[in-house]
Amino acid sequence: MTPKSAIVLFAHGARDSQWAEPFRKMQSMVRDKRASVPVELAFLELMQPSLDEAIADLAARGIKNISVIPLFMAQGGHLKQDLPLKLAEIRRHHPSISFRISPPIGEAQAILTAIADWICNEHG
Amino acid sequence: MTPKSAIVLFAHGARDSQWAEPFRKMQSMVRDKRASVPVELAFLELMQPSLDEAIADLAARGIKNISVIPLFMAQGGHLKQDLPLKLAEIRRHHPSISFRISPPIGEAQAILTAIADWICNEHG
Repeated sequence: MTPKSAIVLFAHGARDSQWAEPFRKMQSMVRDKRASVPVELAFLELMQPSLDEAIADLAARGIKNISVIPLFMAQGGHLKQDLPLKLAEIRRHHPSISFRISPPIGEAQAILTAIADWICNEHG
Repeated sequence: MTPKSAIVLFAHGARDSQWAEPFRKMQSMVRDKRASVPVELAFLELMQPSLDEAIADLAARGIKNISVIPLFMAQGGHLKQDLPLKLAEIRRHHPSISFRISPPIGEAQAILTAIADWICNEHG
């Protein structure tokens, strides 16, 4: 049976290939927890696939609902301007797909708590 | 008694003031957990204070050990090139202060786990 929903982890991208490693780990961890759901990575710039490439691929696989999870620390120009512009263009090409966009990870209380705990551990 | 160690949370910065909010929350959470230790925010660009401003202020307060915690998702040019260059300059101005630089948050397993759990919750 073709899965009807998918998750796209959306990260910034960088020239340095090491930059993608934590995002690939997150992708792998989410795949382990959600074996029946496609979990793809996509990048704003400098790395492939782009968001439109990742979504075109999911559309070709019959996906109808996509959760876009921005792996950014906070709200800024990338999430307030760049992402909505890209999504508007993507929606024009894929009008039958519905999208759900999550807040940045820095707005999730459980993640803030994990980061604050880690900072205190790091300081010793 | 003057505290001898401090924590500097080092974030990217953005034109949009909303961008700083999660970092201010983390600063507040860490201050609550470590009331005796100064916890300051500093930015790479576009927001104040800069890293050198924050550290000059701590130096003036008699701090001798500083944990610099980069609140970046991953290793890339900002942490591999920009931060070491800034720190080399800062060390020249403050030779008696010792620094400890943490890895980016995307390399902390507990944070990756919290993010992966949150992603699965977001997807419903």
